[in-house]
Order: sequence, then C-alpha cells, then structure tokens
Amino acid sequence: MTSTRDEFALLDETWSSVEPPAARRMLIAAAAAFSVRGYHATTTRDIAAKAGMSPAAVYIHYRSKEELLFQISRVGHATSLSVLTAVSEPDPVVRLASAVRAFASWHAEFHTTARVVQYELSALTPEHLAEVVVLRRRIEAAVREMISAGVDAGVFEVPDVRGATLAVLSLCIDVARWYQPAGRRTPAEIGDLYADLVLRMLGAPRESYVQNA
Amino acid sequence: MTSTRDEFALLDETWSSVEPPAARRMLIAAAAAFSVRGYHATTTRDIAAKAGMSPAAVYIHYRSKEELLFQISRVGHATSLSVLTAVSEPDPVVRLASAVRAFASWHAEFHTTARVVQYELSALTPEHLAEVVVLRRRIEAAVREMISAGVDAGVFEVPDVRGATLAVLSLCIDVARWYQPAGRRTPAEIGDLYADLVLRMLGAPRESYVQNA
Repeated sequence: MTSTRDEFALLDETWSSVEPPAARRMLIAAAAAFSVRGYHATTTRDIAAKAGMSPAAVYIHYRSKEELLFQISRVGHATSLSVLTAVSEPDPVVRLASAVRAFASWHAEFHTTARVVQYELSALTPEHLAEVVVLRRRIEAAVREMISAGVDAGVFEVPDVRGATLAVLSLCIDVARWYQPAGRRTPAEIGDLYADLVLRMLGAPRESYVQNA
Repeated sequence: MTSTRDEFALLDETWSSVEPPAARRMLIAAAAAFSVRGYHATTTRDIAAKAGMSPAAVYIHYRSKEELLFQISRVGHATSLSVLTAVSEPDPVVRLASAVRAFASWHAEFHTTARVVQYELSALTPEHLAEVVVLRRRIEAAVREMISAGVDAGVFEVPDVRGATLAVLSLCIDVARWYQPAGRRTPAEIGDLYADLVLRMLGAPRESYVQNA
C-alpha cells in the first residue's frame, strides 16, 4: 500500500497540469481503481469514494467513466513520450541508452498507471483510441529514428529496424507488468540493466557496454 | 472474431486433457469472457451463456468463478512451460534459440489466454496463486539454466544471468499484449525475430545469427 501511495504522490506531481486539483484527484483515484478491479468492474461511484467526493462531483469534471480512462491514457502516453525524447545527446549510442534507461525506469516507477494505459485500450471509444494511437505511433517513431540514426552512423548492426523497435519498446513497457516495489531491483537499476541489454541486442560497439561484463 | 475462434479451436486441442468436454468448453468460454471484460466484470452467468449452458451447470464442474480462472492459469502456465522445455538439443545456442522461438510464438498464437493468465494473477486466492508461482519459478529456472549452460560452455557472454533471464522471459510474454492476428508478422515470424534478437543480446557467436544480418 505504501508503494502505491508513493506512485500516486509522484503522479500528483507529474499530472500537475491537470486543473482544478479536484479533477486531478479523480484521475489518480480512477487509475488506482481501474488497476485493482479493471475498467469494466469499476463504477464512477467507486472512483468518487476513492477521491473522497460525491458521485455527482465526478460529472462536473468528466462526462463519463470512459472520459476518465481516456485522460489517464492520454496523459500517460504523452508523459512516457516526453520521457523517451527528453535526451538531447548527439551520440546515437549514448542517446538510445539514455532513452531506454529513462523509458524502462518510468514503467517501473509508474507501473500502476502504465498497466491501466496498456491493458484497457480496448475500452476506449473509437475516437479516443484514434487520438491515443497517434501518440503510440510517435513513441514508436522516436525509438525507430534513434535506432536508424545508429545504423546510419555505423554503430548499430540491425538487420530488421522495425522488428528491433518493436522488441525495445515491448521490453520497456512490460516492466510495468512484472515490476514489484518490494522486488530485487530499483527502477534506476532496471533502467541500467535494460540500457545495457538493448545496446548488446543492437550490436553496439563493445566498449559502450563492456563495463558491465 | 475469426482469429479468436481460431485461437479457441487450438485451445480445444491443447486442453483436450480437461475432461469432460463440458468442463473444457466452460474453461474456454471463461478465458474468452475474462479477456474481453476482465475477471471482476465477468459473471458465471456470462460464462455459462458463452458456453451454451445453464448457470447451474457451471457449478457441477467448478466451485466458483475463481476456480475457473485458476484452471486457466494452471493449464496456461503448464502448457507454456512444456513448450519452453520441449527442445532436447545438446548445443546451448541452438537450444536457447529454439526455446525462445517456441515460447514467443506460443504467446502470439495463444495471446488471449496468455493475457488472462498474466494480467489476472491478483484475482487468484493465495493458495491458488502459490501453486501458479511454483510453475512460474520453473519457467524462470528453465530459461536461467539454458542461459547458464551457454555461459559455462563459453558461447554466451552474460554479466547478469538473472537480469538476462528476466528480459528474455519478459520479451516473449509481452508478445501476448501487442500481437494482433491481422498484424504484419505471423507467430512463427515473431519467433524467428526474437530468437535472433535474444542471441545477439546474450553475445552468442556471430555465425549463429548472422544469416539475418
């Protein structure tokens, strides 16, 4: 329970752009509720109770339960995209390693939100799903461009850039499934491990990862 | 819809050990229902309707909805373990590549079941979860032993065997999340791609994967 509170304290900071605070509190309560019982088994009444508000108060800020899910999904995808692209580093090996480190550790830190974002896509309306898919394509394009830049510079050896992109993203996203706050590795350690494994997978020069060998 | 039917036709074959056929039909119906609405939002009435039976008929074979989930989880884990360990090949590189190929493509083929198995663990009773955890540890141990065998034989270069085991399993399991039957790659192609990427990640000899470079 402590760890969940920690994640939601972090979320409160990350989602400070969501105004007013009551609307933000509801999003955080909804993410917590969806992660425990699933979207379909959660009612707006459950969410209101978790946020310490009346059921009617939910509808002041959100048209529906689906609207809450959409906002969680939109903010979650947008945040993970900005984490992935925050590194402005000219060297393609260092850039990709930093991006993987940040993206993987984000999925550990925000595992509850990330699970909701990834596993409840099918509950979005077609219009909302289309908006989220735009963000997902930008996430994919960001990784693909980082890999391609390394291939073009002759520092990565990747026969199937699209396939490698898929694997790198999948590896980082799935951290949200298996990560446990009480587990063996911290989010930062997972980031380091994964940056190293991904460099190996992409055939980066030995000296870029050999410090761990 | 066709693809879902395909998966459940395959499951009917895989789960032919579950007798009588009515019990098997209920398991398959439950897996389908859980995957669409989640465990908590699915009732035994929904499952009975999907299996073309009366709600009372469910209780002839299963004590509860949780018992259905447990059987799906138990059979799902046991099947994926047997897929992973089916290869009896002395060469550690060939053995690991074959195991990854089979395990990854199983998670594409049986993505609906695999999602239920992976995402609804927290809905199991503590006793049932403990049984499933035994199978999960055997899956992990099988991969760890295959990696260690390659390290001992001097054909893999892996500074953190436990971390690499985690990554290999995660990569294969997450196929169930992103795989779409109408997508770009078949289950067999995903298996080939992942076998290649994993060999690179583990520092296998260049000639073991270079045919794809």
